Amino acid sequence: MNVGIFTFDDIEVLDLGGPFEVFSVASRVKPRLEPGSSPPFNVFMVSETTAPVRARNNFIVTPAFSFADHPAIDLLVIPGGIVTAELKKETVIQWITSTAAKAQLIAGVCTGSFLLAKAGLLDGKHATTHWSDIAAMKSMFPNVTVEENVRWIDQGSIITSAGISAGIDMSLHLVSRLQSESLALATARQMDYRWLRDGHDTPPHTP
Amino acid sequence: MNVGIFTFDDIEVLDLGGPFEVFSVASRVKPRLEPGSSPPFNVFMVSETTAPVRARNNFIVTPAFSFADHPAIDLLVIPGGIVTAELKKETVIQWITSTAAKAQLIAGVCTGSFLLAKAGLLDGKHATTHWSDIAAMKSMFPNVTVEENVRWIDQGSIITSAGISAGIDMSLHLVSRLQSESLALATARQMDYRWLRDGHDTPPHTP
Repeated sequence: MNVGIFTFDDIEVLDLGGPFEVFSVASRVKPRLEPGSSPPFNVFMVSETTAPVRARNNFIVTPAFSFADHPAIDLLVIPGGIVTAELKKETVIQWITSTAAKAQLIAGVCTGSFLLAKAGLLDGKHATTHWSDIAAMKSMFPNVTVEENVRWIDQGSIITSAGISAGIDMSLHLVSRLQSESLALATARQMDYRWLRDGHDTPPHTP
Repeated sequence: MNVGIFTFDDIEVLDLGGPFEVFSVASRVKPRLEPGSSPPFNVFMVSETTAPVRARNNFIVTPAFSFADHPAIDLLVIPGGIVTAELKKETVIQWITSTAAKAQLIAGVCTGSFLLAKAGLLDGKHATTHWSDIAAMKSMFPNVTVEENVRWIDQGSIITSAGISAGIDMSLHLVSRLQSESLALATARQMDYRWLRDGHDTPPHTP
């Protein structure tokens, strides 16, 4: 399964690194868990071009593929960060729309939900985003039922998660759904991660 | 405070991205929490050269500085991953030794502990690493008291954490220690992260 992660300037480092790590580790762990099996996920970054991308705080990454040359994407991941510029780019929204139409599954992390909403992919659906952006998302996208205090919302072919680290929990949920619960648990164990397994789970909110 | 994160081929993506995110978000959050205050951390990647580095599973990052040209490092972070090649590089071990000597604090994530041990920085001290590497670390470094089933071990000027995601919890602990508990809590909240605040906390281990 090809997992393509959209990468752009001002992307949040952990929105990108969290899902990348989960699908990478799941692929590393599966052949150990089930000898003879193949790595289930092929994970890569995709951007408008293959030029280096400046994630937040000057974390520079180089995407493997551009919009023009990437392999078919089965699972499209749209991370968040500062998405103001991306929301205004017709090329980006059109690429999300057309890539999503061919994908089996679409997953948004944090403010990545805004990009999915802008592409019309969340119309009539339930979705979530970072807690500090709930009000803005409700106001910008009245056709989306925006929910708060949830870790992720799985709507079948599209799934969105709460802020930053919630992308890790959502990705583990997808490993469980697409592969097996035992692989998701082994992946969390390999990552030494305390997986919040319930989509309705929320981290403690400090004052 | 300059936070320099050593970056190398086959580094684990989340070992690098987790601490990078924590110190970046803490710097973003502090001026909001305490109006008029400055961002407390300046986070950057350092590698042997400034050429792009291939983290695990082809995640390509470009370090900001090389060994030869980086600013003074106050907090030196040594992430893990596949460290076999790095352990054999005299330049790397020497750089870690000399940079650590000038740093206020040294933090190892996951198998980054092996690099710190190789540089002699853990001799006579307690330390931890990824659960699957505990036995190897004990056998390779008999002068280090390697502990298991801990999230991190704070030895004052040097601190080591368990696997991959434990670097996030250790970094939040450092934000709390170096700045304030309220900033660490606000950082975890901004990251939507359930911080494992106790160094003796461990994530659930699946069979």
